[in-house]
Amino acid sequence: MKEKCNCLVAQSGGPTAAINASLAGVIKRATESKKFDTIYGSINGIQGVLQQKIISLNETFSNNMEAIETLKTSPAMYLGSCRYKLPPIEINPMQYDFIFETFRRMNIHAFFYIGGNDSMDTVDKLSKYAKLINYDISIIGIPKTIDNDLCETDHTPGFGSAAKYVATTMLEIAHDTYIYDIKSVTIVEIMGRNAGWLTAASALARNSYSNSPHLIYLPERAFSTYNFINDVNKLLEHKKNVIVAVSEGIKDESGKYLSATNSIADEFGHAQLSGTGKYLEHLIKNTIGCKVRSIELNVLQRSAMHISSLTDINESFSLGEYAVEAAEQGLSACMLTITRTSNDPYTIKIDTTPIDKVANAEKSVPLEWINTAGNDVTPEIIDYMRPLIEGEPTIKYKNGIPDYLSIKHLLEPK
Amino acid sequence: MKEKCNCLVAQSGGPTAAINASLAGVIKRATESKKFDTIYGSINGIQGVLQQKIISLNETFSNNMEAIETLKTSPAMYLGSCRYKLPPIEINPMQYDFIFETFRRMNIHAFFYIGGNDSMDTVDKLSKYAKLINYDISIIGIPKTIDNDLCETDHTPGFGSAAKYVATTMLEIAHDTYIYDIKSVTIVEIMGRNAGWLTAASALARNSYSNSPHLIYLPERAFSTYNFINDVNKLLEHKKNVIVAVSEGIKDESGKYLSATNSIADEFGHAQLSGTGKYLEHLIKNTIGCKVRSIELNVLQRSAMHISSLTDINESFSLGEYAVEAAEQGLSACMLTITRTSNDPYTIKIDTTPIDKVANAEKSVPLEWINTAGNDVTPEIIDYMRPLIEGEPTIKYKNGIPDYLSIKHLLEPK
Repeated sequence: MKEKCNCLVAQSGGPTAAINASLAGVIKRATESKKFDTIYGSINGIQGVLQQKIISLNETFSNNMEAIETLKTSPAMYLGSCRYKLPPIEINPMQYDFIFETFRRMNIHAFFYIGGNDSMDTVDKLSKYAKLINYDISIIGIPKTIDNDLCETDHTPGFGSAAKYVATTMLEIAHDTYIYDIKSVTIVEIMGRNAGWLTAASALARNSYSNSPHLIYLPERAFSTYNFINDVNKLLEHKKNVIVAVSEGIKDESGKYLSATNSIADEFGHAQLSGTGKYLEHLIKNTIGCKVRSIELNVLQRSAMHISSLTDINESFSLGEYAVEAAEQGLSACMLTITRTSNDPYTIKIDTTPIDKVANAEKSVPLEWINTAGNDVTPEIIDYMRPLIEGEPTIKYKNGIPDYLSIKHLLEPK
Repeated sequence: MKEKCNCLVAQSGGPTAAINASLAGVIKRATESKKFDTIYGSINGIQGVLQQKIISLNETFSNNMEAIETLKTSPAMYLGSCRYKLPPIEINPMQYDFIFETFRRMNIHAFFYIGGNDSMDTVDKLSKYAKLINYDISIIGIPKTIDNDLCETDHTPGFGSAAKYVATTMLEIAHDTYIYDIKSVTIVEIMGRNAGWLTAASALARNSYSNSPHLIYLPERAFSTYNFINDVNKLLEHKKNVIVAVSEGIKDESGKYLSATNSIADEFGHAQLSGTGKYLEHLIKNTIGCKVRSIELNVLQRSAMHISSLTDINESFSLGEYAVEAAEQGLSACMLTITRTSNDPYTIKIDTTPIDKVANAEKSVPLEWINTAGNDVTPEIIDYMRPLIEGEPTIKYKNGIPDYLSIKHLLEPK
């Protein structure tokens, strides 16, 4: 790496409560670094480089620990996001040329990309291109995703906070449900198209007086509506209220998404896809016939900073700092990983793994962590998840609402 | 009132984050009172008296400030709820006979009923019957409802916490929305069938960098889909992301609920009511055609204790204490009210009002607090709501989730 140069950081994919904590870690450590002058931020991920929407972060954050602390506990993505996958190098090298021309012009010799699966694909491709043109740069992937579906890491930053939101919300829904003295079924639809980690986290809501959710269905196992109705009926024999956690991504035996079978026509005659929860609500109404409601937790799962996990926020911050250290040491083409060194007491170690081992690969919930009937999870996965939701960060409030860091620059793009 | 007697407390209607705080206030003050021996709680509102599901609260709470404090910050209803309206006295006096026979047998001479509109109807009817049979009892209504639609009181306990949840969530949805560099419309459906108070509270999410929600529609004004599409289109001319807050209860010019016009057939051929948000989502998709999503905040609005308002919790607790004092003074057939004595600094005074002035009456948002175009609220209502969401109670956590008071007795009814 050049003796004194600049670095670039960007965020990509879906938001998590912890993705700004990693950004804060990068900024804090880079401002302290002897290697880096300017810390640039690309707006809307790698697209910001292609569109030349790059801002300096020094102004706002240098010698401003308060701003860094506020960033650490602000939701979604300070630098904006994109859902963009670079084309294969051999098909369209022009974008790569343009990106590296920009790096050269701006003296950028370290690039930190905070994101999920698609973002790690970008890290992989840019690393390969850098090698191809012999450009000296450290390209480091910093993982985040509420889905927890990245390989080679014990868990992903962002998952713990989403899991804490899901567990807390499930407990509050249980309190809301138990108050009426009539038979009812409550279905809670949780994010996760292919991996059931977040739906499994609903089991963390169980405590000394409530074993809700009483049924849990993950996309890793084929979903049978016949078994589902049987499961619910059996519980209703001795339970007033049955609460069900279901992944949005459950599929039937033929591999078809359940939500896709609920294609209903709106008043314009167009077919509309309704959610998995709504589908099961209609199913219960039309078979068992008791009181039933469905609740879709929706985007709050990834944005509810106000109920995030301190463990998650702190780890994400540490990953950001570690990324800068890895760049100082000249590492590249890698993603940071978390290794759990002990579960009780919970301790971790941050390390790196070659990026081509993680890009485009997905980690599902192991089948042995799902019970035989396919309607619950095992104690092992609860032991695995519990430490990840521990602790509550201090959120500042102003006028009764959280006092997050301004994202004015995303609203009025430069 | 008899020299030494017992009292009864119950909860009714939909949950709020603050309704247990009023119960905690009643219990604390009643255990200190020289008038009352046993504090009874009726499970599932007035139905618990009819079904003889009455428990003593002294065991759990006497000399146990910790339990009282935990109850104060536990969501939903410790004593369970009902949706039950007593029949007119002249039509079915048998239920009244049974209730007062129970009161006499258990030496109950004060009854505190914490609830909304229907609960105040029960307070009204029981008060009238007590007078009719000349039974010496104080029957006091303690208001609560997230809807803020009770007359004779500045605001209702429970509204402030729901408003804080709505405002915080709207801000987090805004952060989630602004990250992508593509045109989008986000529609957030908020509770309130007839009164728009809670939807108006979404305006509290506005801060120095975000003026989301950009459009607000309340049920107090007829909703025009034509104007709605025009409103959205106009904003999309100079805004990337448009965020809309809409009450579930908006109606068209003929007074028909918008959600009712979205009657769609499911795969069984049955007509299904879909929500207002979903309806508007389809409308935008089929007219403007940009990226659009709808989010239904659902029951979390009334159950999310973890983001409740300290002002609301403290006021609700004070109302509970005041109710016992009112009973000691021999008051009856009344509901407690809150009078705002100053807005800045915010101060209130608790008082009572005759129950027949509030029972079965609804308070809507004044039309002068809605802008001329019918797509936003005025600064006056924001000034009115702001103090109600101030402050954050301390929530205890255990194993990463809130450590609420056990409601085992609701799960295994005695």
